[in-house]
Amino acid sequence: MSDKTESENFDAEQVAGNGLLDRRVFLRQGGGLLGALGAAAGLAGYSKPVEAETLVVPSWTTTPGAWVQGYTQPSKYEGKVVRGPMPSNPYNNVGPGSVRSPLQYLDGMITPNGVHYERSHNGVPDIDPAGHRLLIHGLVKRPLTFTLDALSRYPMTSRISFVECAGNSGGMLAPTAADGTAQSLHGLVSCAEWTGVPLAMLLEEAGVDPKAKWLVAEGADAATMSRSVPLAKALDDALVALYQNGERIRPANGYPMRLLLPGWQGNMNVKWLRRIKLLAEPAMTKDETSKYSLLLKEGKVAQFNFPLDAKSVITKPSPGVNMTAPGLYEISGIAWSGNGKIAKVEVSADGGKSWAPAALSEPVMSKAITRFRIPWRWNGGPAVLQSRAIDETGYVQPTREQQIGARGSRFQYHCNLITSWGVAASGEVKHVYA
Amino acid sequence: MSDKTESENFDAEQVAGNGLLDRRVFLRQGGGLLGALGAAAGLAGYSKPVEAETLVVPSWTTTPGAWVQGYTQPSKYEGKVVRGPMPSNPYNNVGPGSVRSPLQYLDGMITPNGVHYERSHNGVPDIDPAGHRLLIHGLVKRPLTFTLDALSRYPMTSRISFVECAGNSGGMLAPTAADGTAQSLHGLVSCAEWTGVPLAMLLEEAGVDPKAKWLVAEGADAATMSRSVPLAKALDDALVALYQNGERIRPANGYPMRLLLPGWQGNMNVKWLRRIKLLAEPAMTKDETSKYSLLLKEGKVAQFNFPLDAKSVITKPSPGVNMTAPGLYEISGIAWSGNGKIAKVEVSADGGKSWAPAALSEPVMSKAITRFRIPWRWNGGPAVLQSRAIDETGYVQPTREQQIGARGSRFQYHCNLITSWGVAASGEVKHVYA
Repeated sequence: MSDKTESENFDAEQVAGNGLLDRRVFLRQGGGLLGALGAAAGLAGYSKPVEAETLVVPSWTTTPGAWVQGYTQPSKYEGKVVRGPMPSNPYNNVGPGSVRSPLQYLDGMITPNGVHYERSHNGVPDIDPAGHRLLIHGLVKRPLTFTLDALSRYPMTSRISFVECAGNSGGMLAPTAADGTAQSLHGLVSCAEWTGVPLAMLLEEAGVDPKAKWLVAEGADAATMSRSVPLAKALDDALVALYQNGERIRPANGYPMRLLLPGWQGNMNVKWLRRIKLLAEPAMTKDETSKYSLLLKEGKVAQFNFPLDAKSVITKPSPGVNMTAPGLYEISGIAWSGNGKIAKVEVSADGGKSWAPAALSEPVMSKAITRFRIPWRWNGGPAVLQSRAIDETGYVQPTREQQIGARGSRFQYHCNLITSWGVAASGEVKHVYA
Repeated sequence: MSDKTESENFDAEQVAGNGLLDRRVFLRQGGGLLGALGAAAGLAGYSKPVEAETLVVPSWTTTPGAWVQGYTQPSKYEGKVVRGPMPSNPYNNVGPGSVRSPLQYLDGMITPNGVHYERSHNGVPDIDPAGHRLLIHGLVKRPLTFTLDALSRYPMTSRISFVECAGNSGGMLAPTAADGTAQSLHGLVSCAEWTGVPLAMLLEEAGVDPKAKWLVAEGADAATMSRSVPLAKALDDALVALYQNGERIRPANGYPMRLLLPGWQGNMNVKWLRRIKLLAEPAMTKDETSKYSLLLKEGKVAQFNFPLDAKSVITKPSPGVNMTAPGLYEISGIAWSGNGKIAKVEVSADGGKSWAPAALSEPVMSKAITRFRIPWRWNGGPAVLQSRAIDETGYVQPTREQQIGARGSRFQYHCNLITSWGVAASGEVKHVYA
């Protein structure tokens, strides 16, 4: 190694079992080792020498293209990149439903607005923003109402934050591994840049009564979805969000305004927000008593479980995004924590026997999705891929055995155990229990 | 001041002329001073006491909402948030055009994919990704072609980056102030999270001949838009980008792949990328000789002007987003630099006589749009609002007088002078020269 420069001084051989390679391959561009690695690992096999193809001028280069549009859409060839599965529903296409982000077809940290996940308890209301009001009342000195125009005059804050349904990944508790995809198993999580007015500012204007310790937030949907929130969270980082990835929040995500409680379970981030009432005690609404409580071992129930613990899932490869020939691949996925920044993501290619650290794409933001990546030289044999997230508090995403051992298997919500993707010699990727 | 804690120890009075307030008002939530400021500044005037309104249950709360969709769209009430103006064109809706992002209606740093600006030289090609190839040839050891599937196997990088047309803001050189908006004057800039394969990795696989110092990148559109790029940039931070804000790049922005040269002028970020040819000298294409060169004073021409210097523009308030009654407002806008991070944005409410620093929303990323915000107490009188960006190299966005003094007024491209918005006593905001 003595004749290598410092930047070349890393191990292009495997750093954990079954072909995982040093993540720093990704951090270095334009150097000699990439080529050496590529040649050694079969990178060159992805491209073709020019002689192998007849280069033709395609029809789209010889005819003028389409006229510009006011608001663009994805290519017609991307029809599979949609939310799903569509819910079954006996009520003639109204009522509750949930649809999941197509995680296996996305890359980066941002979820585009068109496929942000949705959980709604009585459909998406068609709200005319001119007629919408936000009411702040209860234990306040001055009950107030706010129009959208009024809120638009307040100082705003932007932050990139994930939102995740408390019920996401609940299917991981089935006694046998569900035949699912990253989308169907984990797609009730998305990440966007949210912009809005700090709730603390509005509460201060209303004047918080010292007896107030909680608030209940209510949506204007036909379920009047309602959740109790400790006042401390409202005064910390809560936003009344008006914008999602730059534009107004989409109807499915709460147009014209939603509560954003960074890192806390999805349905507390009340959509179509119409009312905040300050209380001395939690309101015990239907949405926090009959649902969203965790049935633990020996029949105990955990209620008011707010932050979502660290979780991760590999999206490439994953079921439906299969391997082709042996050679070098990128393993990539997403990690997030409701308790702060992702500090590290480790990946295993041998079912958890050995682990190697993945590279994290910038920016790594608190309570946001972080994209991780690690190179993998697949030898064509069977493999079990896993990822585990570690957040800045030191919390480590648990194995299936650990989580079920601690909680039993009926807890339904806040499931964040490690997912295993089995890779067959055929290249097919399937959800397995390992 | 001695009885205040450190966090309270800021000046809620004005910090620059004509009502600009301390930016730290935004950084602090839940404290007593917000309320004091609000009361003092008229914040409470935005909301209404509950007694002033009859609270009604709107129709959308009493009827089940709409069924979930596979791919969502903005609310029907947001029809003005579109790209524009649509180009006039005698060729029956084909051919070149440009449409601008509606900056005055957006907030945050991300431009949603639906309204990312577009400049196309012969329309948007309808590319079937299965038939698209990227060819790397010229001064390389092994000419290679890549399918989209092949590229998808390579290690990827994500980065949040602006793209800006070199011709953006050219209208600021008109002899009298154009009656425009943030969109019509400056809307040829947008910002997205781009994900793709480092170009350096592909070039290394092809094997760069030591004689190669440039490359020419060519699009598959009917203009075969082509630009020469120094090899050093290609080996630095260039990407062959496949994803835009998480999903595949939209057709208008280069589907299925575009070159991303962070911070460099827009049309070098070649869309619908089909060919990269390595050369010893620049190719001198039509797109870098007849256009995109700067006509300077005394008839000199500057060619190959790559990075875009620091620029900023206030989007709220701005023409079309007017003031209503006197009181406290947020002044907000966007800043960006092709040479690194934004270090500071200063705002003036008195036409440049005095300046105060704005707050910058996280994350502040190199070669990305940064959102800035500062509170302003409008006294109802005339005002001239300006912003100036300073990047991490120390570069300061120039005044109109400075830039025209240095370059003349025919340079057309890379115009980044300070914009002035005049606020009338009526609250109307107009573009002015100040």
